[in-house]
Amino acid sequence: MSIRIGILGYGNLGRGVECAIKQNPDMELAAVFTRRDPAGVSILTKEAAVCSAAEAMEWKDRIDVMILCGGSATDLPVQTPEYAGAFNVVDSFDTHARIPEHFANVDAAAKAGNKVGIISVGWDPGMFSLNRMYANAILPQGNDYTFWGKGVSQGHSDAIRRIPGVKDAKQYTIPVEAALESVRNGENPCLSTREKHTRECFVVLEPGADAASVENAIITMPNYFADYDTTVHFISEEELRAKHSGIPHGGFVLRSGKTGWEEEHNHLIEYSLKLDSNPEFTSCVIVAYARAAYRLASQGVTGCKTVFDIPPAYLSVKSGEELRGSML
Amino acid sequence: MSIRIGILGYGNLGRGVECAIKQNPDMELAAVFTRRDPAGVSILTKEAAVCSAAEAMEWKDRIDVMILCGGSATDLPVQTPEYAGAFNVVDSFDTHARIPEHFANVDAAAKAGNKVGIISVGWDPGMFSLNRMYANAILPQGNDYTFWGKGVSQGHSDAIRRIPGVKDAKQYTIPVEAALESVRNGENPCLSTREKHTRECFVVLEPGADAASVENAIITMPNYFADYDTTVHFISEEELRAKHSGIPHGGFVLRSGKTGWEEEHNHLIEYSLKLDSNPEFTSCVIVAYARAAYRLASQGVTGCKTVFDIPPAYLSVKSGEELRGSML
Repeated sequence: MSIRIGILGYGNLGRGVECAIKQNPDMELAAVFTRRDPAGVSILTKEAAVCSAAEAMEWKDRIDVMILCGGSATDLPVQTPEYAGAFNVVDSFDTHARIPEHFANVDAAAKAGNKVGIISVGWDPGMFSLNRMYANAILPQGNDYTFWGKGVSQGHSDAIRRIPGVKDAKQYTIPVEAALESVRNGENPCLSTREKHTRECFVVLEPGADAASVENAIITMPNYFADYDTTVHFISEEELRAKHSGIPHGGFVLRSGKTGWEEEHNHLIEYSLKLDSNPEFTSCVIVAYARAAYRLASQGVTGCKTVFDIPPAYLSVKSGEELRGSML
Repeated sequence: MSIRIGILGYGNLGRGVECAIKQNPDMELAAVFTRRDPAGVSILTKEAAVCSAAEAMEWKDRIDVMILCGGSATDLPVQTPEYAGAFNVVDSFDTHARIPEHFANVDAAAKAGNKVGIISVGWDPGMFSLNRMYANAILPQGNDYTFWGKGVSQGHSDAIRRIPGVKDAKQYTIPVEAALESVRNGENPCLSTREKHTRECFVVLEPGADAASVENAIITMPNYFADYDTTVHFISEEELRAKHSGIPHGGFVLRSGKTGWEEEHNHLIEYSLKLDSNPEFTSCVIVAYARAAYRLASQGVTGCKTVFDIPPAYLSVKSGEELRGSML
């Protein structure tokens, strides 16, 4: 029998989850739940239902894992605990600083409902976290480095769009190659914010807007751009659409460590991602962890889990025997 | 209380484990067991005992995890099942094709003794296996690539040393940069053995040996060299000692996959290692899994496990709360 998946929220992430389910033969999409009018939401999977989010609880016995595809700012802090009382859930909560609080809320709700909730699944948090953790456990003496990009930062693109005179914008975060090379060479550099990443912005102005003042508003914006070397390009709406409509991302997690009785040997562990579609890759990770949620629940496990808690084999459609025979 | 570790076999790997224990504050080396005369074996840890392998069973209640540092060809197939009946054990069994058989033997012995045995721990098998598995679970549609090196292959170096006229030798396995780049570019190449790696040999001849015939014996050797582009350098014993006495290694695990409703997006997951000391890095992985073995045993788990079965958090000295707060 297939693992029956529900999707709550049908934006980029929800659509990515739908696509990922298609690639996993042991899963099926049961229904998409939306806060919009379901009649106006068209999905790709012919066999699946489109329902109002308000009806979700009626699907309690027809869905094995509910994947929560809302945003981390306001949706997930409320939704994940709410749904974890009735469904096994997976979310991609990515506000790193608030993870402990979110974990506690989901843990209490999931335990009360005898369900499993897996939070903060994706690539960062997610696969990057896992790689930081494994590398730290293996090389206790060393330094960690995480670089993001080249990729589109949604938050920074939004911040530019809020500037008066800006019609549309896309912002790329780019790792500084020299910093990466220094880490790879085992130099264990101490890197400032400016030394790790640059920011490149492609901006479409409203008619009559002043380019110089928009540029100044961007490069001096606190938190978002002031601490970075930022380049601003003004382009036409057509060019933005033609060349910057994708949502690529990626990055690098490195640990540079020392071993030996006198710490005389250097080692470098590097994990990197190069992604054409940030939301589709995130969705693929989420769907693999949905399989794990299903299996944990089948064993009677309850409460909140993260990627750190889950045996790797639980993500795979293959049996332990198949994995040992083909991948070990 | 510290986790009390025993080391069986004090070669490069055993010494690496000893060094790794020093970096892990929750562990202590209790004793090294050797098949040599213990009086002739000098170890680095002042507080630890050096004992005959024959006495190991007397330490049953004074060792939490026994790390088996023998070779995969003849030692571990016998030792791991034997010791798994009396100790929680970790080994680095690396004969990929025989892992299912080894697993079954260790599983039966460990279950009979109510112990945990973790096999095939290191980087390949080990961290590379984990990365293959995670990447396959995340990207079901795609291709896997593993490249090894640049690094010293012990087996190939030994094969050269067995050729008449060779006094000493060191062989490096080197990934072909063009092949790596093709994979990274998402070209999904179909690569022959020759296209993936080259082999470079540094050979010291016995006095009077014929260089041309030794070179021919190397480059035509079936399985080891015949399928590769192999370069042979004849050097002096002094140069071999000065420039080629290290045991570096490393490599790359890549998965190139596609996502999207029509598989229109490409993704690349890459994991790489650059290691000054192959045995010391392997030892670090083993010691992290010794912590996991201890924790599993404390929970009453028994039987054989691999890296696929172990929740990542079990490797870390940090608590779940600390990990979520600092690394997720």
